[in-house]
Amino acid sequence: MALIVDIRNSVVPIASEISNAYIDFSKMTASVVALVSDVVRDGKPLVGYGFNSNGRYAPKGLLDERFIPRLREADLGGEIDPVRAWDIMMSNEKPGGHGERSVAVGVLDMALWDLAAKIADVPLYQLIADKWRGGEIDEKIFVYAAGGYYYPGKGVEELQAEMQSYRDRGYRVCKIKIGNGLEEDIPRIEAAMEVVGGGQNLMVDVNGRFDLETAIAYAEAIKGYDLFWYEEVGDPLDYALQAELSKVYPNAMATGENLFSHQDGRNLLRYAGMRPDKDWIQMDCALSYGLVEYKRFIDLLPDYGFSPRNCIPHGGHQMSLNIAAGLGLGGNESYPDVFAPFGGFSDGTKVEDSLVGLHQCAGVGFEEKSALIQTMREATETA
Amino acid sequence: MALIVDIRNSVVPIASEISNAYIDFSKMTASVVALVSDVVRDGKPLVGYGFNSNGRYAPKGLLDERFIPRLREADLGGEIDPVRAWDIMMSNEKPGGHGERSVAVGVLDMALWDLAAKIADVPLYQLIADKWRGGEIDEKIFVYAAGGYYYPGKGVEELQAEMQSYRDRGYRVCKIKIGNGLEEDIPRIEAAMEVVGGGQNLMVDVNGRFDLETAIAYAEAIKGYDLFWYEEVGDPLDYALQAELSKVYPNAMATGENLFSHQDGRNLLRYAGMRPDKDWIQMDCALSYGLVEYKRFIDLLPDYGFSPRNCIPHGGHQMSLNIAAGLGLGGNESYPDVFAPFGGFSDGTKVEDSLVGLHQCAGVGFEEKSALIQTMREATETA
Repeated sequence: MALIVDIRNSVVPIASEISNAYIDFSKMTASVVALVSDVVRDGKPLVGYGFNSNGRYAPKGLLDERFIPRLREADLGGEIDPVRAWDIMMSNEKPGGHGERSVAVGVLDMALWDLAAKIADVPLYQLIADKWRGGEIDEKIFVYAAGGYYYPGKGVEELQAEMQSYRDRGYRVCKIKIGNGLEEDIPRIEAAMEVVGGGQNLMVDVNGRFDLETAIAYAEAIKGYDLFWYEEVGDPLDYALQAELSKVYPNAMATGENLFSHQDGRNLLRYAGMRPDKDWIQMDCALSYGLVEYKRFIDLLPDYGFSPRNCIPHGGHQMSLNIAAGLGLGGNESYPDVFAPFGGFSDGTKVEDSLVGLHQCAGVGFEEKSALIQTMREATETA
Repeated sequence: MALIVDIRNSVVPIASEISNAYIDFSKMTASVVALVSDVVRDGKPLVGYGFNSNGRYAPKGLLDERFIPRLREADLGGEIDPVRAWDIMMSNEKPGGHGERSVAVGVLDMALWDLAAKIADVPLYQLIADKWRGGEIDEKIFVYAAGGYYYPGKGVEELQAEMQSYRDRGYRVCKIKIGNGLEEDIPRIEAAMEVVGGGQNLMVDVNGRFDLETAIAYAEAIKGYDLFWYEEVGDPLDYALQAELSKVYPNAMATGENLFSHQDGRNLLRYAGMRPDKDWIQMDCALSYGLVEYKRFIDLLPDYGFSPRNCIPHGGHQMSLNIAAGLGLGGNESYPDVFAPFGGFSDGTKVEDSLVGLHQCAGVGFEEKSALIQTMREATETA
């Protein structure tokens, strides 16, 4: 028997000076929730934590208005079952319109899985693997360093220094933002390639800004570099643009971080001309109704010729790292220098050749990342 | 010169005992906002009002957290320009994920248009027609009576009485909910047809519940009735289901109330097999970023062989009635008995043969609907 006896909801800033081609992050926030259980271990109640991934704002109002009250009133039958909790949280919600509430549910879903794994006294990736993959775990996960943002006053030299610092920290593959125009971006791309060891170690990310004409002009300009991927080139819902672009761009592309339901993901698979032998899907469970919904998407992949290996989630958080290990995804994003303390790995974890190992404590692994668990405890203790 | 000097944000219940095939409405709420200007007429400041359409909850937190602060800080150059305000409200919002925030922006967009038309001292439909249609106005708008919900204990006789009461109030065309199973629904459909004068005066609405197999089974069972339309049969994002269904169902279908951006609407036009000579599109501006965004969708229609006449918006509110008159849509929904006081027309307006005339006061027309303007004034005066 396990009951949730208290739910705490707080907001912390994750603002920074960075910007991509679409937004700046100076007012970015994240929700942090704590689910306090009546299960006592080592003299303390077990607490499940969850937060939302970067790029979308803290859904505090939605959590307070609808999703936390439903979870409070829910009868989970004395078991912390995220699948059953999901149905309760989404009761009396109409279909379609997948945004914002998908973030709120994602925050609570993360906390539910953290708590469930803590009660089972296993790392979450083990719980996931036991439930859905016959216990098989990937011990090493591919990660890449996401950075290369536009900062005020940042030039090519600073970009190269940033890339070098990722390489020095064990990242083989690194990502930079593009989209401000070929005149500015081609020198940036070539400078970054110099440092990371060629195009196969470099990703470029447009953040959804291009129309088809610009997308193709960039494709022509960069296709000779054989980049790791060309990311989110057009509007996330413009599947036709993606499909047209895949006809002229021969190398790998990636998209999906702004699709927040399995229905949206299915439309990507149906209509966007994505190629199972090379393209990547970046849906982020922490923005899209959590792991319960993400698993529905994963289960659709074979129908369209894809597998979990095609998936490298957006967000750089430990939740997706657990899913990558437990479901056998293609890897996970990592933000070595931004969105702290929400991204990253257990303290002292080494990245080697863009591969990272796993935490050993129960749950998502927050307790092995001291800055993060401290932030979440402080935010929710007074909430 | 006109400035917004105060913005008020409140929530009112629009709960009722009704349910459709997907949700019940016992906890449904609506946001009401008031934009108070510094323009004084007849001794009082002009105030623009907005609210959100039914089916989605009041986005109070989102309004307080992001959209009202941005509008407060906005420099609109001394002019109430909803298009410019839209860009400001949506600054630093990533693309994709169209839900919830689309409702919040829709509420403010309605209030901005109401205020702009009041400042111009014209009914909103006139402002719209002058801006985008060379001043041409539809003086009579097609409306249908939406009802026929499942209530606890409601049988076929009560359904017939309900339909009769709509007919008595001037509605030629009426709509009922279906989806609980053919055994229950076929008698309901036939009973309703008896009262409304045959299938061409009856719509049936599934609210997105069916899989393809059930959708086709119903299609086979009802196609002989030649219904006005068969509405939102599958998940709103399952365009493939809609496209498959359109191959076997020969009569009109309608969908789109749960698509909240022009990008989602465009995917409907691209992928759902919608037929310009018979099908209907129901996007509701008050749930989907307001008229500014709705106009972007309207402008896409000709590219896919459709026209504004294919559009009959969901929601039954005066905002869409203005748009129908000003842009020449196919009509508007109406809820004679539910979601009061937010639906409906100016006091004393008569519906004749499912056609309704227009208000004459400046703005959306709220001031000619006493119960609604009273509710909105009371809600926002103390907010």
